[in-house]
Amino acid sequence: MPEAGAAPLGRLAIVGLGLIGSSIARGARRYGLAETIVAIDRDEAVQTRVRDLGLADQVTGDAAEGVAGADLVILCVPVGAVGAVAAEIAPHLAPRAILSDVGSVKGSVVAAVAPHLPEGVAFVPGHPVAGTEYSGPDAGFSTLFQNRWCILTPPEGTDEAAVARVRGLWEGLGAIVETMSPEHHDLVLAITSHVPHLIAYNIVGTAADLEEVTQSEVIKFSAGGFRDFTRIAASDPTMWRDVFLTNKDAVLEMLGRFNEDLAALARAIRWGDGEALHALFTRTRAIRRGIVAMGQETAEPDFGRRKEG
Amino acid sequence: MPEAGAAPLGRLAIVGLGLIGSSIARGARRYGLAETIVAIDRDEAVQTRVRDLGLADQVTGDAAEGVAGADLVILCVPVGAVGAVAAEIAPHLAPRAILSDVGSVKGSVVAAVAPHLPEGVAFVPGHPVAGTEYSGPDAGFSTLFQNRWCILTPPEGTDEAAVARVRGLWEGLGAIVETMSPEHHDLVLAITSHVPHLIAYNIVGTAADLEEVTQSEVIKFSAGGFRDFTRIAASDPTMWRDVFLTNKDAVLEMLGRFNEDLAALARAIRWGDGEALHALFTRTRAIRRGIVAMGQETAEPDFGRRKEG
Repeated sequence: MPEAGAAPLGRLAIVGLGLIGSSIARGARRYGLAETIVAIDRDEAVQTRVRDLGLADQVTGDAAEGVAGADLVILCVPVGAVGAVAAEIAPHLAPRAILSDVGSVKGSVVAAVAPHLPEGVAFVPGHPVAGTEYSGPDAGFSTLFQNRWCILTPPEGTDEAAVARVRGLWEGLGAIVETMSPEHHDLVLAITSHVPHLIAYNIVGTAADLEEVTQSEVIKFSAGGFRDFTRIAASDPTMWRDVFLTNKDAVLEMLGRFNEDLAALARAIRWGDGEALHALFTRTRAIRRGIVAMGQETAEPDFGRRKEG
Repeated sequence: MPEAGAAPLGRLAIVGLGLIGSSIARGARRYGLAETIVAIDRDEAVQTRVRDLGLADQVTGDAAEGVAGADLVILCVPVGAVGAVAAEIAPHLAPRAILSDVGSVKGSVVAAVAPHLPEGVAFVPGHPVAGTEYSGPDAGFSTLFQNRWCILTPPEGTDEAAVARVRGLWEGLGAIVETMSPEHHDLVLAITSHVPHLIAYNIVGTAADLEEVTQSEVIKFSAGGFRDFTRIAASDPTMWRDVFLTNKDAVLEMLGRFNEDLAALARAIRWGDGEALHALFTRTRAIRRGIVAMGQETAEPDFGRRKEG
């Protein structure tokens, strides 16, 4: 594990206290990564919960007030809202503040934030590849990012010290940091996250709309495989709408490949080509072994849903 | 919970000691559901493991010998092998024996077994909707069927007493038994199990074949959703090849609906129809709530992969 980066931050402002924002707040507190944590959320119900849970030193609905004097401001709002929030807070950022985000799409975020960036403020876009199917300030936990990757996509010429500060925060939260271009990020995440979510949402929708099979039957017999898809199809609708709208090209490209492969598979079924099916079904086991070996997944049968043997 | 059916079986013969067969053996022993358990497997390595694990009272590779005198014979082999095994054992079945199976497809199994069925032997096809991604005699456990559905598809006119015996065994193993026609079973399972497995296998294959994204990247960033699909894409290749070859019509029908819906979703993305996306993504949450409420799934975030808060 790399060392956590240097001294803790002075003032850390988090905009949006959902699953990710509230997990950063919890982790920053627990691991001593900032002297002062400011929570900014325009939703009053969220502000109340954040106060009740004691997640921050200061809680406000006023973004201008909240970001004033912050060393690092992290935007944890749906990617479709990042541009508007950046525009709102830009005039109030401290002269040498660092701005970052946690959006699941990076190209569109860079394009949305760039026009608003004040002179002297560095923007270090980030994406922690971690989460659960739950949303809101109660859903977060301090260990969410432990042993998960966080991708940073700083544009060329970004202040190195600013990148190091953001890297230090993520390493302090237990993440492994990797850097790549926004374009490559969006392609990688299209296949490892966005298309999987899309087809999960899709099959759950298909199953709900059948006439020959009742919804009650779908639910009862879901242990045959379907229920695994319903987990990711329970993720936050606004966040995911924005992901698909802002990473359209990469998603449609990867979806095109998925569809080509699926058409070939359907053809193998129609023509009874058992060898082709068996070959694919054998090959796919290796990828899972790699994921388990890299600590990105549990090896317990059935995700360890059953404890008893 | 319904009562376990009457007296225990005398002699229970299990053909094929994989995940399902070995779980039945373990459960029958633990819950006292049979006086004598006979394990039949033509694979010598499996016979040795079954002996070492002490899963049965008698272990043999000779199906004729193993089924002799059995009150109930359950075929736990891939559905593509059920017909051949039925033909092999038929002449050796006791006069009033009951034959059953656990195949994930029922129409083809009924068609494959019927021609071999001796006079006086009742065939009660069954399918426990339970499993994990692991295979073989070491993968089984006695509680695999607890609170899971088991579907029986007895043809019209099947001896009621035979159906009650098979139902009693499954209830004794903790399952909830439901009866339906083989045709309806195959349609229900096509959407709740077969198509989910097909698209999981497919996306894992697509991801493995990309040139722009390396396999190492797919593995590292799999926590964004992809890893959930790799679990079911690690299931037994022979079993699943047979499922797709023997439930071709229902699978292709359900896959056609999935594809129609996916095309509409891709179109919504291309045209930026955020409302349509948000509406679907909201609707799909309800189905998961139903599955969790019915005890078919854990409500723990991320399948409870993380224990700490």
